Amino acid sequence: MTASVPGTESLQSHAARLSGASIAGLLKDEPGRVAAQALQVGPLYASFARQRYDATAWDALLALGRGHDLAGAFRRMFDGEKINVTEGRAVLHTALRGDLSPAPAAHAAYETAAAVRVRMRGLIESLEASDVTDIVSVGIGGSDLGPRLVADALRGPVPGRFRVHFISNVDGAAAQRVLAPLDPKRTAAILISKTFGTQETLLNGAIVRDWLGGSERIYAVSANPERAAAAFEIAAERVLPMWDWVGGRYSLWSAVGFPIALAIGFERFEQLLEGAALMDAHVLEAPLESNLAVRHGLTAVWNRNALGLASHAVMTYDQRLALLPAYLQQLVMESLGKRVKLDGSPVAADTVPVWWGGAGTDVQHSFFQALHQGTGIVPADFIGTVHNDDPYAENHDALLSNLLAQTEALANGQSSEDPHKVYPGNRPSTTILLDALTPQSLGALLAMYEHSVYVQSVVWGINAFDQFGVELGKQVASTLLPALRGETKAADPVTAELIARLGR
Amino acid sequence: MTASVPGTESLQSHAARLSGASIAGLLKDEPGRVAAQALQVGPLYASFARQRYDATAWDALLALGRGHDLAGAFRRMFDGEKINVTEGRAVLHTALRGDLSPAPAAHAAYETAAAVRVRMRGLIESLEASDVTDIVSVGIGGSDLGPRLVADALRGPVPGRFRVHFISNVDGAAAQRVLAPLDPKRTAAILISKTFGTQETLLNGAIVRDWLGGSERIYAVSANPERAAAAFEIAAERVLPMWDWVGGRYSLWSAVGFPIALAIGFERFEQLLEGAALMDAHVLEAPLESNLAVRHGLTAVWNRNALGLASHAVMTYDQRLALLPAYLQQLVMESLGKRVKLDGSPVAADTVPVWWGGAGTDVQHSFFQALHQGTGIVPADFIGTVHNDDPYAENHDALLSNLLAQTEALANGQSSEDPHKVYPGNRPSTTILLDALTPQSLGALLAMYEHSVYVQSVVWGINAFDQFGVELGKQVASTLLPALRGETKAADPVTAELIARLGR
Repeated sequence: MTASVPGTESLQSHAARLSGASIAGLLKDEPGRVAAQALQVGPLYASFARQRYDATAWDALLALGRGHDLAGAFRRMFDGEKINVTEGRAVLHTALRGDLSPAPAAHAAYETAAAVRVRMRGLIESLEASDVTDIVSVGIGGSDLGPRLVADALRGPVPGRFRVHFISNVDGAAAQRVLAPLDPKRTAAILISKTFGTQETLLNGAIVRDWLGGSERIYAVSANPERAAAAFEIAAERVLPMWDWVGGRYSLWSAVGFPIALAIGFERFEQLLEGAALMDAHVLEAPLESNLAVRHGLTAVWNRNALGLASHAVMTYDQRLALLPAYLQQLVMESLGKRVKLDGSPVAADTVPVWWGGAGTDVQHSFFQALHQGTGIVPADFIGTVHNDDPYAENHDALLSNLLAQTEALANGQSSEDPHKVYPGNRPSTTILLDALTPQSLGALLAMYEHSVYVQSVVWGINAFDQFGVELGKQVASTLLPALRGETKAADPVTAELIARLGR
Repeated sequence: MTASVPGTESLQSHAARLSGASIAGLLKDEPGRVAAQALQVGPLYASFARQRYDATAWDALLALGRGHDLAGAFRRMFDGEKINVTEGRAVLHTALRGDLSPAPAAHAAYETAAAVRVRMRGLIESLEASDVTDIVSVGIGGSDLGPRLVADALRGPVPGRFRVHFISNVDGAAAQRVLAPLDPKRTAAILISKTFGTQETLLNGAIVRDWLGGSERIYAVSANPERAAAAFEIAAERVLPMWDWVGGRYSLWSAVGFPIALAIGFERFEQLLEGAALMDAHVLEAPLESNLAVRHGLTAVWNRNALGLASHAVMTYDQRLALLPAYLQQLVMESLGKRVKLDGSPVAADTVPVWWGGAGTDVQHSFFQALHQGTGIVPADFIGTVHNDDPYAENHDALLSNLLAQTEALANGQSSEDPHKVYPGNRPSTTILLDALTPQSLGALLAMYEHSVYVQSVVWGINAFDQFGVELGKQVASTLLPALRGETKAADPVTAELIARLGR
């Protein structure tokens, strides 16, 4: 499954040439490798020196990127061209965080977003002046994972002005567990749904409204503000807009980030945007060879198409980033989980691998056994923070020494007389260090991953911004709901039997 | 990578024979398939009808299992033979939950475990009689994931007698976030470590002891009780034992489950053990063809070795089971992430795939795009509960209709004139229904996964009960700690550069 993606064949020949090479050997053979395979961009340092390409293969990857005109592709995105061709939409999440393009569409989007932030700030100030102590954010997928991640990553050990809670799953246990300990008189809710047609958010929104006893303290964020206002009788001034030029999984920078701003304060929300804008400017301006998102994205293509690796892991050596793997699963797999190109022809290469991971050091005591001694190879991003914000210096040294040790052990392995104690090594990783976990560094990190995804999509020729694959399940669910209630009969024999077992 | 595992070749010939078959076609061609490929065991119903084997291939899988004497392998484990040969240990987690074997070693283990439960109950009663409101459990990996999962799954929407919290990560942010909102005067702590040499638990245990102001309300669980008592000056009556015949990742049924019993009550902890014992008795007694763990384990072998699928997902359509994928990552990947057989020769087949997943319906709005329309195929277990415990019936119907719809859509796919809206289908899944989420059903479910892991290990010829792969990282970390502090110099050039970047 390769051939027709331009350049993939040349990658595979490099992989074949390097099949006997070890990471340790590459470091010996290429004297400048440590510096050449690392980049510093603002608060982020990233080392790719433990990837399994040599300088020659890396040049081939860069040539692949040039062949796909990555620089032009970024320019078109930032300028607001309708690069989401299957839906005929521009892709302007970058305009939510900076005025980076003189193109009219992009600049107008920037101005529009800035005006909404002024409104959002006003709503936050009025909530701060109220006796509300708790915020319940209701949304799912792109309306949940980003706010949930950032609010959790950047909150202090004790709550700020507001405690912010999230309800996403349609399972009633989700709403029940969030609401049970709260006081409805001191709680406000935000319903977030781009379409305001999302089953989960409508059902959970109704539960929250009933629990609150009305809509007076309900806010909404939607690209369909009239529908939002009508469905829940929400006054227009409490409905914040979003737009079809922002995909759900790229939307935390918009009013979808309202729960973030409540959890960490509006100023720090703006710093998050500034961090992302710093990365945006780098990605737009830096030449391909020193462009962090390009290097990250081409490395992912290398591991997928040249080495044939079927998954990619993210290990966050910072407990506060524990939700990052779940966030990236959506960002990467929903964007790149495609099998046809923009023109409808099949992609000849494998596209997105499984993205997964967890927080170190916990994961070392869990699945790392398989990473070190299993039969499969899992490339991984290891993410750490240079400075910590807790008082436990000895713990932080232990944390960092483990991050360093794991990447070294995966790369170098160890021989032994006892075959049960052999570590084959040669398992690639990228190490990313943040100067500290701040709104700026987190914003830059998330923007880097967004742009890496775009790089991969351009190389594969797919649309990173649609998600038709989620529609069929919704359709089938709506036809099965009456079958589940005994009103119709399911056509599929397995489904019919399962419904019988469900006792309906 | 196959050949020498007995029977694998025959699986691959069946996979080749079935390469053009569809799941829908198999259901049409095999009239009794829905019933034949399903099993009910106590509170669990499982349907394998949407796996990509036919009756003939399934017979080959069963023959493979017979060829490996799975029935005898279970008997040897339950009887307490030293099947963990690389460490010379018996594997008797089954004796923690039932008196299922007349073998002296197994019966003695059962009696020993029962006596410890009496002691544990006494400690719980004394804590209940105190003014303690919060419990902090300190442990990592096998001393954390099981208690954390079960306590979260079976807790009510409001806390019972105790709120139970967990600290695992050596990152100081983990301890800081747990401790900050608590009152040390009303908190007790449990330090859980089999060896009491675990770096994370010693560091975090010291933080908790200092925060508590002493060891009077510290309890410990360890196979090295003297060390535990000495390190933290814990009175012997507050130290509960475990044993070398219980692996960490199989230990939640032992005194490692002390936090579970505090979170859900001792009676419900015993019901959890009863549910596991019910599954144990089934697995030990049922013939291979109607043995749930055998079917689940052989199905995993089929997907890995016959179809070559590199990951396996677990989707919990119950928010309360959201931690199950992380728990299973450890159970499965630490047990099966091996590349050499018991005798030290290399396994000729691929062993464990990546296990990952998440909670539905959330994941439908995240990575399901890639499951439906990506280039890779991910087999999955979908787990749902027939009856819910929250008041939201409409939500529960929506949840179940989505579970049914996703498995049906993955299997059957959908054609379209628009290539972007084609769903290729033929993506296999197993559906597991619990009658309700109770201690019994959860105990049975977790025991089923434990035994499925054992089935896979026997077929692959590997030891599911050691974990030498986690040692190298620990060794390297201890040599890098002085390098990180500037006292020595790191030998690896990438590590040296990263340490420079860390500014030490």
